[in-house]
Amino acid sequence: MGAGSDLLERFRRGDRAALARLITWAENDDERFGPILEALFEQVGRAWRLGITGPPGAGKSSLVNELARALRETSKTVGVLAVDPSSPFTGGALLGDRIRMEDRTLDPGVFIRSMASRDSHGGLARASVDACDVMDAFGLERILIETVGVGQAEYDVMGAADCVLVVLCPGAGDGIQAMKSGLLEVADIVAVNKCDLPGAERLVADLEEALHVRFVRRRNWEVPIVPCSAATGEGIERLLEAVVKHRGWLESQGLEAARRLRRLEQVRQELAARLTQHLWSEAGYREAALEALGERRSPREVSARLLSDILGEGGIATRKAPARGPLTPQ
Amino acid sequence: MGAGSDLLERFRRGDRAALARLITWAENDDERFGPILEALFEQVGRAWRLGITGPPGAGKSSLVNELARALRETSKTVGVLAVDPSSPFTGGALLGDRIRMEDRTLDPGVFIRSMASRDSHGGLARASVDACDVMDAFGLERILIETVGVGQAEYDVMGAADCVLVVLCPGAGDGIQAMKSGLLEVADIVAVNKCDLPGAERLVADLEEALHVRFVRRRNWEVPIVPCSAATGEGIERLLEAVVKHRGWLESQGLEAARRLRRLEQVRQELAARLTQHLWSEAGYREAALEALGERRSPREVSARLLSDILGEGGIATRKAPARGPLTPQ
Repeated sequence: MGAGSDLLERFRRGDRAALARLITWAENDDERFGPILEALFEQVGRAWRLGITGPPGAGKSSLVNELARALRETSKTVGVLAVDPSSPFTGGALLGDRIRMEDRTLDPGVFIRSMASRDSHGGLARASVDACDVMDAFGLERILIETVGVGQAEYDVMGAADCVLVVLCPGAGDGIQAMKSGLLEVADIVAVNKCDLPGAERLVADLEEALHVRFVRRRNWEVPIVPCSAATGEGIERLLEAVVKHRGWLESQGLEAARRLRRLEQVRQELAARLTQHLWSEAGYREAALEALGERRSPREVSARLLSDILGEGGIATRKAPARGPLTPQ
Repeated sequence: MGAGSDLLERFRRGDRAALARLITWAENDDERFGPILEALFEQVGRAWRLGITGPPGAGKSSLVNELARALRETSKTVGVLAVDPSSPFTGGALLGDRIRMEDRTLDPGVFIRSMASRDSHGGLARASVDACDVMDAFGLERILIETVGVGQAEYDVMGAADCVLVVLCPGAGDGIQAMKSGLLEVADIVAVNKCDLPGAERLVADLEEALHVRFVRRRNWEVPIVPCSAATGEGIERLLEAVVKHRGWLESQGLEAARRLRRLEQVRQELAARLTQHLWSEAGYREAALEALGERRSPREVSARLLSDILGEGGIATRKAPARGPLTPQ
């Protein structure tokens, strides 16, 4: 891995261009990325990862900018990953958002990177996690992962975060809408941005009620609702205090176990994607499925038959005892 | 299949309670559902399926109500499936929406059903397609599938539709936001609801520009933008005309082939879900993954190793020649 080992050396010397290159490799699913990540993986796990999501227009980018500023005041190094799962077309819109972060980009203690979607089968979530891992290995102490929108892809991206901050604001997304979109379910902390606008108090009250009814029974972390304003800086300190408090709670609950379960979910998704890809493109199952569909069988029936075909006669289940397989030499 | 065959008979006699029961079985992934769907599948394919989606607050439910009314005026029977992928908690909110459809519920030519999410791994999309299939086999001529929100689950649900109508309105979601959320990419028709509100003309103009730049080059269907108002009924006829025009276009492009490709995607997703479920819960791969993660290997590395473990030594690829397998006797 000639070019790779040179890059690795530059990365370890703290060369930001090497970091940027590695993230590009992750984004492109470059085959050189895997071995390098493996070589770096011992260094992963030191950063604290904060996910920031919420409906369009809630002011996520401005808030990320303010959070980065506040973190820099405590001398922490900061990585920012802005992820746009929606479309390959929206690079422009995202770039517009990023221009507002200009005052951070000259600071050598801040590393900013955008990432947009290229395919729809989970590639972006994987690349986001990879990017966080290399920023982490690079030594950045706080990683802010921002996603535009509220869909499944965003939730997958949020799977990389230790703490998820959901940003709402009066008007653009009131409490009911946030519940409808399922956003509150992933929130560890809720920021009510633009708290000087009319309706902010009402939104906070609605959220308090919704979160009280729905979440207290589910986990013993009480989701704080923090009014703030990225425009005036109001409430930013309180937000960071909430993040620190959540971290303490997570550590008391077993941080390593929680992180390992997140990693396990990444493995599950990645394995499903790779396996389906193999079955479809290389093992001829796409053609078999098309043929069965042509006989007017339902997709349910066709997938059940394909599955029994795959698992039958010396298939996966009966042949392997994975706990004693090559993965885990004893 | 005693109870099943009785139900099937009642279903074939046009008993709406039997239809409702079958949809419940689909929703619960009841083992009795599969054989019945198979028995009915010859009758599937006659209905025209229209998906309606858009951001919260755009007025989708009211528009669905108006579309159902207009379709009934042409004596078509109508099925309405309202799908809420966001959360098991939002039954209440959705019910609130549905109350507005009350004036349709007494019409025997209209069948209305709501469906909410119970798990996050594609079960809802599958159940939605199943529900459409049984409504179709029941003889309902037009099926309106409404989803709340704009996420991946909604796109999967929209995979059941022949035509996707994206509903926007001034204020709640302007053109830029719709692009950010990736909504326009799935649109066959865009409805600008609440067209009497300020900003509607501007929204139409923005959309025209966005759709012209981004989509004309991609497909030879030019997405129409239809101003309308569910409150006054304005534009509803034009919307239905656009649906008919889109249908003609789709037929000229090869409707059956398009539908088969949608079915193929359903098979792919279903197969991935079932296979992963098997590997994880029954074949011991979850434990193998956890153990490998404990050795500080990256999820990328772990999933690659699991995959080669699965495919190695007489695995899927080499053992089977699916095109000649039991699925397709020759």
